[in-house]
Amino acid sequence: MGGQEIEQLIRLLGRLPGFGPRSARRVALYLLREPHTRLAPLARAMERAGEAIRTCSSCGNLDTSDPCHICSDPLRDKGLVCVVETVGDLWALERAGVHRGVYQVLGGTLSPLAGVGPEDLNVSALLTRLHEGSVREVILALGATVEGASTMHWLMDRLETYEGLTISRVAQGVPMGGALDVLDDGTLAAALGARRPA
Amino acid sequence: MGGQEIEQLIRLLGRLPGFGPRSARRVALYLLREPHTRLAPLARAMERAGEAIRTCSSCGNLDTSDPCHICSDPLRDKGLVCVVETVGDLWALERAGVHRGVYQVLGGTLSPLAGVGPEDLNVSALLTRLHEGSVREVILALGATVEGASTMHWLMDRLETYEGLTISRVAQGVPMGGALDVLDDGTLAAALGARRPA
Repeated sequence: MGGQEIEQLIRLLGRLPGFGPRSARRVALYLLREPHTRLAPLARAMERAGEAIRTCSSCGNLDTSDPCHICSDPLRDKGLVCVVETVGDLWALERAGVHRGVYQVLGGTLSPLAGVGPEDLNVSALLTRLHEGSVREVILALGATVEGASTMHWLMDRLETYEGLTISRVAQGVPMGGALDVLDDGTLAAALGARRPA
Repeated sequence: MGGQEIEQLIRLLGRLPGFGPRSARRVALYLLREPHTRLAPLARAMERAGEAIRTCSSCGNLDTSDPCHICSDPLRDKGLVCVVETVGDLWALERAGVHRGVYQVLGGTLSPLAGVGPEDLNVSALLTRLHEGSVREVILALGATVEGASTMHWLMDRLETYEGLTISRVAQGVPMGGALDVLDDGTLAAALGARRPA
């Protein structure tokens, strides 16, 4: 549609998560209608973010500094490490403001079918910290999926060798604001099994 | 979330049509996870498209050449002009491959509430062509909205002064593959009113 530069832009936009050809064209048109006020600033922001981005060598977070602003924050509890699958999970917990410790981003889950083994997961920094004896508790905040569960069990095997370390996992149950009749059986079983005195 | 460059990228992504904070973060993370293979190529494609983009001085299409590839195509029928609201409408008709003439992109519809008057619509090129007497038929392909209808009537008033000019409008009715029971009353009334021998 009108020149290879435009077609290339639409093609690359179409690869973004949640995008199809239709939304790619819509966004391309939106940007191209105002090249100076819409397209150029976004291209510039991408370039700047791409130049500034660092992967935290300690926890695996994406940030503009290494160590990231969480790992270098003296107020964060370094003895409390929350293990998450992705940077997106870390960001979600940070937005909620519910974790006062630090993180370890695995960068995925064990998945033999997808060829992801233990060596592909980012745990070395966590193990180093455990060896140093500076960690008091590890919270496993992995997804409630088959891969998340098998990754959790593999991690627990490795963590149980550290004496005096508390290993916990996030609770499963009915999400806030969620109606019971739309939940799957697994969630209902977990919620019922983990019931507490009211 | 992690540095002002990343925050700025998420903010600008969140302004795109169809985006919210959630999808902006998701796309930002997708791009930032692979800065060299995902983010950089897209930023480059945006810059190139921004530099190459031209608005066709004849029809108003967005293209990398002016006049656009449609207006400069000797095989297109210059005597048959299809009037559309937006470049997106033009692209949709081109993808369908159903129009062998040329276009006139108004760039919007009359909308007193939004402060869009006749002087804001791009019709001068069309009127010039009409004065030259080179146009045989004008097809009005405007949206079936209040604004589209008022724009169409305003245009018809101006076009009716040209003798011998055929003015037509796209048909309204049941969309292909569309079930009747999900259509609104207006569409049903139009489809019934414009019924043809089977």
